[in-house]
Amino acid sequence: MGGLKAAVFIFAFLFFAASAYAGPKYIFLFIGDGMGLPQISAAEAYKGAANKNRDGFSPPEPLIFTGFPALGLARTYNAGSYITDSASAATAMASGRKASRGAVNVSPDGKSSYTPITHTLKGRGYKIGVVTSVALNHATPAAFYASGVGRGDAYAIAEALADSGFDYFGGGGIAQARGRNSDKPDVLKKIAEKYAVVSTKEGMRALKPGVKAVVINEVLNGSSMPFAIDGEKGSPSLADHTEKAIEMLYNEKGFFLMVEGGNIDYACHANDAAAAVKEVLAFDEAVGKALEFYRKHPKDTLIVVTGDHETGGMSVGYISSRFNAPIERLALQKGSHKKFINEIFKPYSEKNTSGASLVHMKKPVMEFFGIDLDALSGAEKASLEKAFVQSLTDPDYDWKNKELYMLYGGNDPFSNELLKIFNAGAGIGWTTYVHTGQPVPVFAIGENSELFKGYYDNTDIYVKMMEGKNE
Amino acid sequence: MGGLKAAVFIFAFLFFAASAYAGPKYIFLFIGDGMGLPQISAAEAYKGAANKNRDGFSPPEPLIFTGFPALGLARTYNAGSYITDSASAATAMASGRKASRGAVNVSPDGKSSYTPITHTLKGRGYKIGVVTSVALNHATPAAFYASGVGRGDAYAIAEALADSGFDYFGGGGIAQARGRNSDKPDVLKKIAEKYAVVSTKEGMRALKPGVKAVVINEVLNGSSMPFAIDGEKGSPSLADHTEKAIEMLYNEKGFFLMVEGGNIDYACHANDAAAAVKEVLAFDEAVGKALEFYRKHPKDTLIVVTGDHETGGMSVGYISSRFNAPIERLALQKGSHKKFINEIFKPYSEKNTSGASLVHMKKPVMEFFGIDLDALSGAEKASLEKAFVQSLTDPDYDWKNKELYMLYGGNDPFSNELLKIFNAGAGIGWTTYVHTGQPVPVFAIGENSELFKGYYDNTDIYVKMMEGKNE
Repeated sequence: MGGLKAAVFIFAFLFFAASAYAGPKYIFLFIGDGMGLPQISAAEAYKGAANKNRDGFSPPEPLIFTGFPALGLARTYNAGSYITDSASAATAMASGRKASRGAVNVSPDGKSSYTPITHTLKGRGYKIGVVTSVALNHATPAAFYASGVGRGDAYAIAEALADSGFDYFGGGGIAQARGRNSDKPDVLKKIAEKYAVVSTKEGMRALKPGVKAVVINEVLNGSSMPFAIDGEKGSPSLADHTEKAIEMLYNEKGFFLMVEGGNIDYACHANDAAAAVKEVLAFDEAVGKALEFYRKHPKDTLIVVTGDHETGGMSVGYISSRFNAPIERLALQKGSHKKFINEIFKPYSEKNTSGASLVHMKKPVMEFFGIDLDALSGAEKASLEKAFVQSLTDPDYDWKNKELYMLYGGNDPFSNELLKIFNAGAGIGWTTYVHTGQPVPVFAIGENSELFKGYYDNTDIYVKMMEGKNE
Repeated sequence: MGGLKAAVFIFAFLFFAASAYAGPKYIFLFIGDGMGLPQISAAEAYKGAANKNRDGFSPPEPLIFTGFPALGLARTYNAGSYITDSASAATAMASGRKASRGAVNVSPDGKSSYTPITHTLKGRGYKIGVVTSVALNHATPAAFYASGVGRGDAYAIAEALADSGFDYFGGGGIAQARGRNSDKPDVLKKIAEKYAVVSTKEGMRALKPGVKAVVINEVLNGSSMPFAIDGEKGSPSLADHTEKAIEMLYNEKGFFLMVEGGNIDYACHANDAAAAVKEVLAFDEAVGKALEFYRKHPKDTLIVVTGDHETGGMSVGYISSRFNAPIERLALQKGSHKKFINEIFKPYSEKNTSGASLVHMKKPVMEFFGIDLDALSGAEKASLEKAFVQSLTDPDYDWKNKELYMLYGGNDPFSNELLKIFNAGAGIGWTTYVHTGQPVPVFAIGENSELFKGYYDNTDIYVKMMEGKNE
């Protein structure tokens, strides 16, 4: 009987040990917004373009995260469409459920709210961090702390941030901090009641673990971080934010950190290939910080890197360049389309309210894009002239005007037209100014990473992250 | 000592058994020419479009091969460019070496030839089959039997087919059977000296294992099989050819069968989305025949399905349709662009050498594409009118003329312009008339299939297929 008792005891112990298994202690989820296979492979091609092999050719070079051992593909359709938006895609990954366009953790019938993985893990003692290169209350980060709200209600999302009790937020600013109509109390004050709010690099450096903090980027460009291609001095990078988040979150009970490369999507909406590729490389650098952590805690750490959808229908390969892919030419572009608009075109157009002429743009366009206006074809010149006039006279045109939308997609006309010429020269094509339905790659390393192999839905990313956590 | 002897014997036996392990006995390699992730996911979206769920939405539906357990991604760059052609891509998979554009199993310096997997396996007693929906001496199938030759030398490739000693060839016809200048002896005669050459469905059915056979499709359209969307009666499908190949190759020593969905590429070069999607589904049906075989021989069979590159920079998502993806509208197209040209436009233009007018096309265009010519915008109508005139007066324009190439990419102008309008209506975009550099998915099932997980080069597909075969 003693033997039987012992056997039962051992069995019970093993059973308990198995059911108490809790999966990875430290979980990183990196989401490249708008980062599909085209963006990833373009970044690999661009990274490799600097190094010629003995055949005089530069093969693509793997990124940090494309070297991870586990590879998957995730379908991204949402509850209503084959092409998802960021809110429903983030909901899928945060809560494991398909949602409708614009919904932040709301069921398709609008009747119930979903609980994101972050709240579940916080309930189990994990510290929680959210980092993004765009506004902290943008759709993607929102799904990792807010519930039952539409992405358009940025004010309510910011309030949910204040109420989350999470430990670290870092990246861009707060959009609509006084509400959509600027008639509400500054939500940053509410946030500051519960968090150390910091907006300088020095303030960020001075933060010590144990404090709950919200770090807003010091050089704000709207409410997003500046594009990586613009390399603003004194402005922390996504990697800096990730490193700080790790320092602030590290503890013995575990943490969950979501890092969004949100500016990839913005660059792709503008069909700004050079900005997009450099944004993917900056995102990869942030992944590198998590990989350093993983190397110190290999048995307890899971890193997952994916996109929420593809943006732009991007391709390395374009009609005019045929089999040629001179992607190294992306290096000729000196900054983002935003920088060109704000630092070159706007000052010029404000000074030249009359007498403006495309001829004056010859030098700055050559310097910024390496494009020789005199070498353009007649058709290119006519399109560029038309866009130049549109940007001068009505840059805030109604994008619901179908003809203008087909030409410029809601972007600044002149820089948009310059990008078309520039991208063609680098062999890069685009089919749309919004998202496409192509599935996105998933890369993973560390504990449970083998679960991320295969072809599945984006909702399964939640399931796989929760594996071993016995909901 | 007896014990030691026995141990040594057992050790030696295990060692021998291990080194004699030969990997999968039955290997299938399916190559969708021009089939990247966009083509695969578009086919999934189209397949799902027929079935509405309770939200009134139709999620994508997996294909037979996208349900396989092992998923990988293969980089496709060749020895000289980020964007590969079919010859160098097929060489990579057949011989495990990167080659230059146009090279069929030739080293980049042109000095040496590569031996494809098929010849190696034939040397070990495997039967070998090559099936394709395009010409049997096209670049992709060529790399599985010819060596040290350029893809342009179709005659030499056909001679290599005759000399290969392989067991089964099936699919399209033989291109340039009398040489590029039609001044050589008919190579089909040389082939017929060694093979039963059959070109009817009845002849195909009558073939019995043990005979070496070349089955040319009975309804030839150039030297390719007809597009699946054209559903020619009496014409064996790619699945029929695959089934016959399996019957002819099956033996106790093993076989290797390469099946190419070559018409996917042709449809994508023409930016014919409806034809491309139906070609992927026909290719999937052929994979289904291999899966039936796998189910009977699960321990001895490996099935690998991949593409050689992406063609067209295709996307589900297009500028004018924004977040909408009405891919079910592809069903409105009644046949391929080729069928439209050959059966509708050509007979019309031959009858109406004078007095031809776009107005006459109103009814046939509505019937074939569901496009109402009267509902087009002014810009669309002007482009279509221009293309109509070009097709009437000079359909064989010089595609090296940059302006015409940018408009029509070397395709028939009128049908090309109709496809632009049709594709936009279905939310499908394209960026080029040739290939792009996007890596291609790899799906595998069966013995050694787990080796195909991960992110690697297309040359590794060869290495993984040979795994266990101790070269």
